[in-house]
Amino acid sequence: MKHRKSENFSEWYVEVVEEAGLAGYAPVKGTIYLLPYGYEIWELIRSHLDKRFRESGHRNAFLPVLIPESLLRKEAEHFKGFTPEVFWVTHSGDDPLGERLAVRPTSETLFYATFGGAIKSWRELPVLVNFWNSALRAEIKSTKPFIRTSEFLWQEGHTIHATREEAEEEVMRMLRIYREVIEEKLAIPVVAGYKSELEKFVGAVYTTTLEAVMPDGKVLQMATSHNLGQNFTIPFEVRYLGPDGKMHYAWSTSWGLSWRVIGAVIMVHGDDRGLRLPPEIAPIQVVIVPIHYKEEERALVLEKCREVARRLADAGIRVHLDDRTEYTPGWKFNEWELKGVPLRAEIGPKEVEGGRVTLARRDALTRVAVSDAELVESVRRLLDEIQRSLYESAKRFLLEHITDARSLEEFSRVLEEKGGFVRATYCGSKECEAAIKELTGATVRVIPFDPEPILSNCVYCGGEGKVTAYFGRAY
Amino acid sequence: MKHRKSENFSEWYVEVVEEAGLAGYAPVKGTIYLLPYGYEIWELIRSHLDKRFRESGHRNAFLPVLIPESLLRKEAEHFKGFTPEVFWVTHSGDDPLGERLAVRPTSETLFYATFGGAIKSWRELPVLVNFWNSALRAEIKSTKPFIRTSEFLWQEGHTIHATREEAEEEVMRMLRIYREVIEEKLAIPVVAGYKSELEKFVGAVYTTTLEAVMPDGKVLQMATSHNLGQNFTIPFEVRYLGPDGKMHYAWSTSWGLSWRVIGAVIMVHGDDRGLRLPPEIAPIQVVIVPIHYKEEERALVLEKCREVARRLADAGIRVHLDDRTEYTPGWKFNEWELKGVPLRAEIGPKEVEGGRVTLARRDALTRVAVSDAELVESVRRLLDEIQRSLYESAKRFLLEHITDARSLEEFSRVLEEKGGFVRATYCGSKECEAAIKELTGATVRVIPFDPEPILSNCVYCGGEGKVTAYFGRAY
Repeated sequence: MKHRKSENFSEWYVEVVEEAGLAGYAPVKGTIYLLPYGYEIWELIRSHLDKRFRESGHRNAFLPVLIPESLLRKEAEHFKGFTPEVFWVTHSGDDPLGERLAVRPTSETLFYATFGGAIKSWRELPVLVNFWNSALRAEIKSTKPFIRTSEFLWQEGHTIHATREEAEEEVMRMLRIYREVIEEKLAIPVVAGYKSELEKFVGAVYTTTLEAVMPDGKVLQMATSHNLGQNFTIPFEVRYLGPDGKMHYAWSTSWGLSWRVIGAVIMVHGDDRGLRLPPEIAPIQVVIVPIHYKEEERALVLEKCREVARRLADAGIRVHLDDRTEYTPGWKFNEWELKGVPLRAEIGPKEVEGGRVTLARRDALTRVAVSDAELVESVRRLLDEIQRSLYESAKRFLLEHITDARSLEEFSRVLEEKGGFVRATYCGSKECEAAIKELTGATVRVIPFDPEPILSNCVYCGGEGKVTAYFGRAY
Repeated sequence: MKHRKSENFSEWYVEVVEEAGLAGYAPVKGTIYLLPYGYEIWELIRSHLDKRFRESGHRNAFLPVLIPESLLRKEAEHFKGFTPEVFWVTHSGDDPLGERLAVRPTSETLFYATFGGAIKSWRELPVLVNFWNSALRAEIKSTKPFIRTSEFLWQEGHTIHATREEAEEEVMRMLRIYREVIEEKLAIPVVAGYKSELEKFVGAVYTTTLEAVMPDGKVLQMATSHNLGQNFTIPFEVRYLGPDGKMHYAWSTSWGLSWRVIGAVIMVHGDDRGLRLPPEIAPIQVVIVPIHYKEEERALVLEKCREVARRLADAGIRVHLDDRTEYTPGWKFNEWELKGVPLRAEIGPKEVEGGRVTLARRDALTRVAVSDAELVESVRRLLDEIQRSLYESAKRFLLEHITDARSLEEFSRVLEEKGGFVRATYCGSKECEAAIKELTGATVRVIPFDPEPILSNCVYCGGEGKVTAYFGRAY
């Protein structure tokens, strides 16, 4: 690693992405490709989420990537919100198309035209569907791997309900699932709440969000869950015959989480040696490095390494034996630290002789010898400890980076000196929100679900303080 | 079902797709969306393949969907082959792009520009990567769900090797994996071999293929595996430093299987009642239908249904209890037959009293009562039998539809009267192959790996018979 996290955060980040073998830049500006190691992290995040989606009654399906312009235009606000970023297909082969086709920026419109159009009666509701795909939004400036890319992997959930209440419950249910996975698996603590009118999803009645503070003081949106009310079901005529024999417009939601969260994992947990992966999303949880300098040690050491690998794999632990002969143990230590593998098992003649294994923690950089007999149990315990320790350390950082401000001056000073969330009260108007953004670069990131104490009059206009929100400069 | 398989094959096919709840038409011509039931079949096929890909050392990764035109042009034949079908992005938002971007028709070019470009030494070889994504090729005429669509889900594997021999082994290894999954899991027997010069993948040295006969006598390509030689590594300058200290061009392969195979499953196994799914790829392997007419029977019947569902689920069988109250048992029987669920468990007062379950096979439409004690074992055995029986019946059909022809007249007559594969000898020239196609509509589908007996002189030109191939009219 050439860069240091505390000194050149932005360069450090890109260096980790590339040196840890997660991703690289692809030819089209703002796009990246994922190497297997990076993609496997996404596969693990996907499987954690997918399990919870299924358990809560959702099913996966598929929608095409091309959307006719006329369809995208059907919900006017929505179209206006996305149109500057849409990639447009105008030709197939040499032939101009009769109508431009958008390359999926999000699938609401297509979902209502297909799944929505098929609904006839209340018996078919709710429709609870999820799509694992990619979305495309042209990003011209400040692109950054995972955080801001013109194409990103994500999941988009879409649901249709008979009543407003059911839709509201769904919005909160999915935000809870996101929070569980982000906090328990990605080890990143978040602040949850509503988006402001200015920041909500284009076309939503309201948006709920999870936001995390990054080490450079900027705030990152981790996942959002939207109540779309009848904003889409009315223009798309998604109606159902109720048990009362009458036709009703349905209610709908959408919710999404993208590979941005991998960017957050890198930023929050990484250090000057590279990546530090929470065990729950580590493609390799334990890497075994054989250590032998003399030829006669080799066979015994390798035999023990294979035995340890087998025992850990049998216990359901993701283990990799690095038995490459062209690299030294020191070189391997360095590489696996860079790649953020939570535990390294060092096995040499001493370990063979002593009936033990030396385990090195990537998070704390400490080493401990455990006996062969208690190997599996020790590894399990250490992985749990690492998972918890990463979360707790991030939690401390988050709590240290929520600061109250009672005036615009204080607000700006906190932002400049410390960053993170600035908790402040304003009058709730779009005008003051926009003015604060203009002046400080900070936006309303979260309005907590349970209203927090009014701290002052509006920090901008001095009028009555109505809303206490978490402000921050966002990625 | 309105249509019959034997009478209106084409209409019957589309009716099954829609009525079984697999897929529907999306707004852009030639595109479809998948409903959860259809997508779950794809997820099962994916997991069977993915397991084998991993076991043979391959890892999943991600490539963007947009490819700059200049990159696509780098291998001239390849570009020429795909260009009539490419969807072109020309604008992002209101801004014209400096260069047109292709929406992925296939990823060879992007793979060599990214993964290929990163290779330095022999130590990094082979590179064995797979991508689960979708590809887009504009299909104007005779589109058909799964079989011919402008966007299709597939996997594309790409590998780079140090030697020609390793690449050749890889091509055959992947074709073997495809064959295993298609024959053992999809229950569709295939004929394997090479493609002809006219029919091979644009840019390949040679293409190997698996082809199956559909009930209407047409032949369907199920999967292909290509030896690309150095056709891509030279223009993309994919070179590595060998152990000999010199730079060498690498060798490469690619291989793919798409959701077409779902089309084949529908065609081959379906009947006049709808879909018949092989248990290995059935989202629901056993559906339980409670049968109770009197209110006092209800609780006991449902209790037993839940107990049976729990026992089967615990045994790893995909089971669904259809306890909807708004439909009659007869209505449910019909629906689940349409959806092709391999086994139906009927549970009514008689079954409760007799300590048994009635099992109905979707393939043979037979019913058998099994005692509660041997339920799990019986279900397992019946699912195995259904899987085998579907394969054997398809195998008989295939063997009955390989017919020798020793003259052009005989060739045409077989095609007209019976369809399927026409085994015939020709001189091996592109000219005769093209002339046969022009005259009969049949192409060379497969040239078997082990040359088959010369049956005659060239059926077209009468010159020396050099190649015995399997011809057919293809989807």
